[in-house]
This record gives sequence, structure tokens and C-alpha cells, in this order.
Amino acid sequence: MQLSDAIQQLSQLQRRQYAYQHAQVILTLDAATAAPSGTAEGRGVALGILAGEEHRLFANEEVGKLLAFLDERKEELDFLTRRQVEELLRAYRKLSRIPAEEYMAFSQLVNEADAVWRRAKVENDFPAFRPVLDQIVSYNRKFAGYYDPDKAPYDALLDEYERGMDTAALDRFFSTLRERLVPLLQKVAAAPRPDDRFLHGSFPVEEQRALSEDLMERMGLDREHCGIAETEHPFTTNANNKDVRITTHYYPDNFTSSMFSVIHEGGHALYELGVADELQYTCLAGGVSMGIHESQSRFYENIIGRSRPFLEALLPTLKKRFPGRLDGVDGAMLYRAVNRVEPSLIRIEADELTYPLHIMVRYEIEKKLIAGEMEAGDVPAAWNALYQEYLGVEVPDDRRGCLQDSHWSGGSIGYFPSYALGSAYGAQMLRNMEREVDVWGGVGRGDLSQVTAWLREKIHRHGSSLTPAQVLENACGAPFDPTYYTDYLTEKYSALYGL
Amino acid sequence: MQLSDAIQQLSQLQRRQYAYQHAQVILTLDAATAAPSGTAEGRGVALGILAGEEHRLFANEEVGKLLAFLDERKEELDFLTRRQVEELLRAYRKLSRIPAEEYMAFSQLVNEADAVWRRAKVENDFPAFRPVLDQIVSYNRKFAGYYDPDKAPYDALLDEYERGMDTAALDRFFSTLRERLVPLLQKVAAAPRPDDRFLHGSFPVEEQRALSEDLMERMGLDREHCGIAETEHPFTTNANNKDVRITTHYYPDNFTSSMFSVIHEGGHALYELGVADELQYTCLAGGVSMGIHESQSRFYENIIGRSRPFLEALLPTLKKRFPGRLDGVDGAMLYRAVNRVEPSLIRIEADELTYPLHIMVRYEIEKKLIAGEMEAGDVPAAWNALYQEYLGVEVPDDRRGCLQDSHWSGGSIGYFPSYALGSAYGAQMLRNMEREVDVWGGVGRGDLSQVTAWLREKIHRHGSSLTPAQVLENACGAPFDPTYYTDYLTEKYSALYGL
Repeated sequence: MQLSDAIQQLSQLQRRQYAYQHAQVILTLDAATAAPSGTAEGRGVALGILAGEEHRLFANEEVGKLLAFLDERKEELDFLTRRQVEELLRAYRKLSRIPAEEYMAFSQLVNEADAVWRRAKVENDFPAFRPVLDQIVSYNRKFAGYYDPDKAPYDALLDEYERGMDTAALDRFFSTLRERLVPLLQKVAAAPRPDDRFLHGSFPVEEQRALSEDLMERMGLDREHCGIAETEHPFTTNANNKDVRITTHYYPDNFTSSMFSVIHEGGHALYELGVADELQYTCLAGGVSMGIHESQSRFYENIIGRSRPFLEALLPTLKKRFPGRLDGVDGAMLYRAVNRVEPSLIRIEADELTYPLHIMVRYEIEKKLIAGEMEAGDVPAAWNALYQEYLGVEVPDDRRGCLQDSHWSGGSIGYFPSYALGSAYGAQMLRNMEREVDVWGGVGRGDLSQVTAWLREKIHRHGSSLTPAQVLENACGAPFDPTYYTDYLTEKYSALYGL
Repeated sequence: MQLSDAIQQLSQLQRRQYAYQHAQVILTLDAATAAPSGTAEGRGVALGILAGEEHRLFANEEVGKLLAFLDERKEELDFLTRRQVEELLRAYRKLSRIPAEEYMAFSQLVNEADAVWRRAKVENDFPAFRPVLDQIVSYNRKFAGYYDPDKAPYDALLDEYERGMDTAALDRFFSTLRERLVPLLQKVAAAPRPDDRFLHGSFPVEEQRALSEDLMERMGLDREHCGIAETEHPFTTNANNKDVRITTHYYPDNFTSSMFSVIHEGGHALYELGVADELQYTCLAGGVSMGIHESQSRFYENIIGRSRPFLEALLPTLKKRFPGRLDGVDGAMLYRAVNRVEPSLIRIEADELTYPLHIMVRYEIEKKLIAGEMEAGDVPAAWNALYQEYLGVEVPDDRRGCLQDSHWSGGSIGYFPSYALGSAYGAQMLRNMEREVDVWGGVGRGDLSQVTAWLREKIHRHGSSLTPAQVLENACGAPFDPTYYTDYLTEKYSALYGL
């Protein structure tokens, strides 16, 4: 085989993988946004077959030979081709290590687990979900051994969602959070609460839709390449760097829910829109990890979107969209109201300060489940005790406790930490950005272009061509250090609550 | 090979084809309804690759052997499996007869032709389109020889869109139309025109959307399996018999355009929704031909939707949706207004009576182009002369003349006649239906369920398991006879215009 032919074959393989992923993205998007309710069966048949076709395309001996050939001559490859070979080889080895029948059985289990979990949640019936969770944990433990037999199982799982992250690093991270945030939260909870009554009332959905347009324009989201639709739970998906879609959900009695979800998803979208063209149609297109992705969405949502300069600049637009609803509200009042801290039961409704504590609960439980130190049956009691300890709230039932999230029933263990990591990454990025860019001057004029240009240069354009740690160091000028995050939260909330 | 294994392989092959077609349907639907404007390139890459994958799946020697094996033992197959083998073998032979490089070159040409045609239409520049049309004609002539070397080329093309139809039958059909409709139209044009001023004015789009819901409910379109979206040009598409989507376009100054497009597309949708479950995920799922499909859409749109009983029953709903706009309008007035005849230049805006004359113009030109009796350069003059002869209108420019339709630039020659055939099929079906069902009693009560049940039994459920001619004979109780259609039009419009 000639090297140039092999490189050509590698490119063709990735283009074909892209086509299957594109189809999967759009079919799933259509399902959530436009498809009539009774159409799941035929779509399931199509998606299952297409996944099988994509699997067949990749998991075969010729691909193994091609990748081995290129790997042997990797010194002769340019940087991006070498990175493609590394990533594909990693995926290939992983796939070939998991016995096909185990993978199929796990897929089957996860499919069924979704319905079991949904019913268990509605009926507040953890015992119904318990055996499924037990099985999912044991599959994850087994797969961890396939992923990397030299690592502790939970480390191998963490590495799937955030390459290079492990229990040692996360223990340090979360213990810093515990030491700094739990006492901070206790002080905040004892202080008088800001008034946010003006955020509740009647906010016509048509005006909220127009506000979404305002926000997307303000964020520099190019509407020729970024669509918006409505779904129960907001999300971002993308077919490539020229075709990104965000979704939101409008509540007629509350405009901030959709407003911050648009800014959050807009952050994800800017990341995908900013990936370099040269990475398109390869395995390096797209954001590098969940943690880095969340760093972008949470940076825009919380660090920018919930900052006083941003809110001051946005206030006239809000007053125009909702005439009479915000009379007498000034920037300081709006800033206090949208940053009101409220220890609560539900992760996805949590404020910026309590959010990482919700994640910490899940981290501790996952770690013990995978280590075999806890069984599924022990989860509710552990959950409730940790919510009491970290957040100071009493969990009244499992529906609002350990049954609230879809991640475990979806088969994912080791995914949650990336949410908290993303927030912490963002705080460290901010400090470095502030050295190079007049962040708050721009934001205060309603101009996010410098912020986005900086993130694009340091993070977005690289897609998956660098590792998460490299991207982070690019953006922070130093390795990851969680104290930036705890300092950021301490300063912001101490000032807000006059502590 | 065991017969049972071969049948199993046949089923798997068709399920895989289904998955690719499903993806193609949804990506194309998304492109027309939701995708941002700048997303065509990446979608084009994905669709091109997926089409290539589907082609590779089918056009290979193993499939040829499988089909040959099953064909040899077709006496042992059940009816539906035998029909699948017949259809797939036909497609396989066709594909294997067209040299791959010619097929690729033609696909390339058609891709480029679309842009050339669009620009030529905007700029009223037929000479720019002429060389492309010449090439498309010559490819079609060549392909006709591959499709069926024993047939005259235009007959082979017609057979692609309406199996079993040929020039001899269409000449009889169109000469009947010419003899009966051209003089009828001349009389209508000389008569006083009905008043339709009340159809124009201000009709809020929100109310028109609600009217679409009313109409879909009235037609018995199951919203769990049939969606509606908005596009520039209305169409119907379906992924399977449980996932059908229609589209429409709302004009704020005119509610009948969208109203009749919803009824028309609803007719297509009922056909696809009515295909039997046992045909799903096989090549026999879906409507059997363009002509039969148009028979269903035009049946609902014109024969039912523009009938007096239907309009009488609908009028209270219209008055409720558009308060004050239809005061003093009664069923007779509405019936006359929506059936106003207006010889015009544009096919897609034509009324029921003049519509087939638009098709007749295209038929005569296509026939001569493919026979080599006319060149692309002769088209404008021929077009304009025929519009004068059949419709009595002067064509002021090619933009509103021979450049108006996308079919030729899309590579399709022989497609147009199915539009006129569909209308004629519907008229003949009506007479047979009236013998078995109280059509107008039900329609007059706003109840279309008996009409739909009859069509479902005679036509819809069969999908492509019968030929178009068999379906038609099923529904009409006799072979195709165009005089039902000319009688229907003559009676309806003579009464309407008091001739």
C-alpha cells in the first residue's frame, strides 16, 4: 500500500462516518422538534440499521490494517493526519476489545432502562429501577476493564468523557469545592434573599421568541448556520461547523429560564461553529470533551450572562420586549435577582453557586458504585444524606432525589463530573482572558465579539485536534487549578450577599 | 443457499434500503422546513455519501445472485415476496444496464442544471438554459434505451413514472381532452365570471394555521402520524406509513391557496398513511406511481374539496376563523368563487378546468424532444403557440413560459403526464365510488370517513404490491377511460357557468 493511498482511504472512511453521524443528528433533532408523536418505531428501525452500517464500516479488519499501517509510519504524517490515526486507533481498539454480544446486550439494556427509569420516576418507585441500575453499574465496571485494564475502573470511565481526568484529580477538585463552597453556601443561606418577584409574571411567548433572536444576535451566532427550535429540554446539536441547532423551552410566566438556556446553548453553538474548516468531515471535528463543552456554555451563561455589565447592557432590550413588567428595575436589581441562591433538590434548576454541589453528590455515589463499595440499593439513602450535608436540603422522595437524572439509565457513569469541571475551567479561563482582552468593557457595551474571538482562537478552532488538557492550558496559560473557580464564586457571592 | 435464508436476506436488504431512504427523507424535509440557509454544503456531502452507500448496498454481484436465485424459485414464493423480487430485479437490471460513469455524469449535470435553470428563470434568459436542456434530453433518450431497448424512447420514459402507460394511450387521452376541453374552455371564457372578491383581503396567518388543523381533522389525518410544516412550495413526504409530513404556504391576503394545498397534500398523506403494515420496510411500501398519487391528492382537492357539499359543510368553520370576512357569503357563492376559471400562464396556479391543458402543452413538447423532432432551441416558440391554441393566452416571456417548471432541469422527462392522468383517474374512481358509497351525503355532513375508507380499501392499502393499472381497475371496476373525466368537467363547469 502506498502512503498516499492509505491517507486517501483514511479520509474517505471519515467522510463516510460523518455522513452517518449527520443523519443520526438530524433524525434525532427532527424527533425532538418536529416529528409527530407516533413516529418513534420506524425511526428506531432506521437509526438502528444506520448505526449498524456505521459499525460495519469501521469495525472490520481492513480498517484495522489501514490504521496499523498508518500508525507504523506516523512520523511521516502531518500533524492532523497523525491525530486522526491516534483517535481512530483508540476507538478501533476499544471497539475490538468489547465482545460484540456484550455490547449488543448493553445497548439492549440501555434501551429498556430508559422506559423503566421514566416509569420509576413518575411513580416514585426506586425499587423498580434498582435492578436495572445494578446491571448498568456492572456493565460499566466490565467495560472499564476493556477501555483500559491498567486503570482503576472509575478512572477508565472518567477518561471516556474527559480524557486525562482521574479520581485523584477529581478528589482534589471536589475537596477544594467542599471546603470552600459548603461554608460559603451556609453563610449565603443565612443572609437576606434578594427580591426577584419582578422576574415572575406574564411574559408573552412571542416576545420571548424575539428575545431569543436578540440574544443570538448579541452573541454573534450566525443565523445562516445556527437554527433555534423548541423542545421540552433545551439542547445543542450539530451536523458540522456550518450547521448547528440550539433549542429552548418557553415558560409564559418566566422569561429568564429560556433567556439563560439560549445563552447556555449559544455557548455550545459558538464552540461548534468555531471549529476550523480543515477539521470538517474528520474525527477531529467537534468539541473535544464534555468538560470543555460545558466550560463554553457555562462561561456564556454564568460568567458573562449573569454578570452585571451584561445585564446592564441587556436591560433596555428586556424593557422593550416586556413593556411595563420591569418598570423601576435597574441593573443592580436585575443582577441580584438572576443570581439569587436557593439550595434546592433539582440539579437542572440549580443556581450557579449550588450547582457544583449537586454534581459532587453524584460523583461520590458513582465512585463508590463502580468501586463496589456501594450497591444500587444503597443509593437513595446515600443521596439523601449528601444533599443534607452539602446543600442543607431534605429530599422528600426519590423522584426529586436519585431518580431525577437520565444519565445512569442512559448507561453513562462518569459523565457528571464534566459539568462541574466545565464551570471551573471557565473561571480559570476568565482570569487569563482578562489579561489579554478588555472583557468587561466589551460586555458592558453589549459587544461579545472580543470574548468570542479569544475563545475561538484558544479553544474553538482546535476542535478535537488537541487533548482537553492541552486546550485548557492553551486557554488558561497554566494547568488546571480549581481555586480560580472557588475564588470566583466566593468573590461574586460574598459581594452579592454582603458577607 | 436455502430458500428461507434467501428470503431472510431479501428482507434484510430491503430494511437497509429503507433506513437510507428514511434518512434521505428527513434530511431533505429538514432542509426545506427548519435548516438555516447556509447549511446546504455539509448536507450535500452527507446525502451524496449516503446515496453512494445505498447504491453500493444494492448494485453488487451478491444482490444479483440473490435475486436470480429467488426469481428461479418464484413459484415457491408467497405473493408479496414474489412481487418484491420482481420489483427489485427490475431496478437491479436497470441499474446494471446504465454505465456507472454515464449515471454519475448525468447526476452531475442535473446538479448543475438546477442552478442554471434558476438563474435563467430569474433573468428570463432561455438561451442560457438551452444547452443544458439539450444535454438532459439526450441523456434521457440514451437512458430510455437502457430502460427498455424494445420500446420507443418516450414510451420507455413514461413507463418509469407510470408503469404501463405509453404514447398511444396518452395520445388517445390528450386528444379526448383537446376535443372536449378546448371548446368548453372557450365557452366558459365568454361567460360572465363569478364574483370572488370576498376571497381576497386580510386573513391572519394564525387563523389560517388553525384552519389547517380543522381541515386535517376533517380529513381524518391522524396527527400522531402526520405532521404539518411551512415551506415555499407545498409538498408531502413520508418516511413510512406511520410518519408522514405535509407542508403548506400561507398568504396573508388569501386563505384558499393554503386551504386547497392542505387538502391536496392531505390526499397524498392519506394514501401513504393507508399503506398496509405488512408492506413496511420493503420496496412495496409507498404509493405505486405518480399518477395514482396525484389521483388521490386531486380527488380530495378538486372533486371533494371544490364540491358544493364540502364547501357548504365547511362554511361555518371559515366564518368562525375569519370573523366578518365572509358575511353574507353562502355555499353557492363560495362554490362559484373557488371554481372560477381563469386561463393563465402558470401551471401551479391553474384552476381545475385549465390545468390539464397546461400538461398537454408539456406532453406535446416532450414527445417531440425525445423523438428528435424538436430541439431545445425550438421550445419557446412551440410553447407559446400551444398556450395560444389551448388556453387562448399570450405568453409574454419565457420566465412565465417554458422556464416556469423545475422538472426538466431536474432531469425528468415523461413525468408531467401523470399530473393530468391523476385527475382523470380520480373522476373515473368517483363514478364507481358513488355506486357503493353515499359520497355526497357524507361529504355534506363534513364526514369524509366513508370516502377515505373506500379509497383505503381499493387503493391505499395495496401500496406498490399491485401495478398502477391494477390499482386503477380495482378502484374503477373497469380499465382507464378518459371520458369520465371530460364528462365530469363538462357537467360541473356547464352548470357553474350556465352554458
